Amino acid sequence: MFITFEGIDGSGKSTQARLLAEALRADGLDVVLTREPGGSPGAEEIRRLVLEGDPDRWSPETEILLFTAARRDHLERTIAPALAAGRIVICDRFADSTRMYQGLSRGDLRGLVDQLHALMIGREPDLTFLVDIDPTVGLARAKGRQGTEERFEDMGLAMQERMRAGFLALAREFATRFRLVNGARPTEDVAAEILSLTRAALA
Amino acid sequence: MFITFEGIDGSGKSTQARLLAEALRADGLDVVLTREPGGSPGAEEIRRLVLEGDPDRWSPETEILLFTAARRDHLERTIAPALAAGRIVICDRFADSTRMYQGLSRGDLRGLVDQLHALMIGREPDLTFLVDIDPTVGLARAKGRQGTEERFEDMGLAMQERMRAGFLALAREFATRFRLVNGARPTEDVAAEILSLTRAALA
Repeated sequence: MFITFEGIDGSGKSTQARLLAEALRADGLDVVLTREPGGSPGAEEIRRLVLEGDPDRWSPETEILLFTAARRDHLERTIAPALAAGRIVICDRFADSTRMYQGLSRGDLRGLVDQLHALMIGREPDLTFLVDIDPTVGLARAKGRQGTEERFEDMGLAMQERMRAGFLALAREFATRFRLVNGARPTEDVAAEILSLTRAALA
Repeated sequence: MFITFEGIDGSGKSTQARLLAEALRADGLDVVLTREPGGSPGAEEIRRLVLEGDPDRWSPETEILLFTAARRDHLERTIAPALAAGRIVICDRFADSTRMYQGLSRGDLRGLVDQLHALMIGREPDLTFLVDIDPTVGLARAKGRQGTEERFEDMGLAMQERMRAGFLALAREFATRFRLVNGARPTEDVAAEILSLTRAALA
């Protein structure tokens, strides 16, 4: 089972991915918790290229290629071997984030993202949690963090609002694998709902 | 006019690219001399990822994506603006190197390289010089250099022989833009032939 978490910055999805991994491990399951961009040594090096520096450092097209390169490496070296060994893989962001951040943020490149995905990745998650949050809340949370990985957070509130609307539309487009979760509630309530939905999918 | 130089390591193509740039500048022409992978600040950063480290650091597919990302950046930020300004661009390696090194070296991925090129690059040179050399000579020259960019040179003589044969086949495939030059002669003789062929193409 390949499970992904999606949502705008500050939605709480990384925390929820970690809590789900802990809960499934407590159930005795073998879980790999990973993240994108990154998740393998090579992909982590590409991560630095795409998350640090000026927002205009790369064109959207070059950025799509770099994210796809990182994803290919991550899939080959981390995700696919774990799934082949019967483990559960939980990943914080995957191809849906590229469909949104690169596909929507600076012009309509969704078609290009989809063609590149079909050519070089060709794998969708079995289950995707969209942790939905008001962008004002999400951005305040994200801005409160330390760090240099600010290229996307720097894009501001209007962009986060477009991303939120885009993610909600994506959840309708891939309704079979998406589960929409309200991230505005207390962390433990969100986690309990996600665990319950995952157990139902595993059953 | 967009001119590229191709050939195996140690063929002398980098020297010839530089000599052609100098000769055309002496003719009063405005020339940009560049190289791949690299040729723009972002692409030079990707260059370090693909040319340094272990030969198995990346899968062929990931490598193709990284080279294409570097090429896209180089094309957007260096090549296309120079051509639009009416300058002559001379580039040491371009897409033909990816067709060979990634398309042939580890399995037959030429089809994938071509699809990715059509999707993300879509530009061919006007003129391409293939500087042909015996791989034994080329490898000895390349090995004599200092440096850490050894991932491809480390692949050995058998690979260089496949690459040479591949480049010769490519020159037949794209016969209109390719010019085959014998790189085993003295440097100045090779340079004189290349300059003469370039002047004919510019006329």
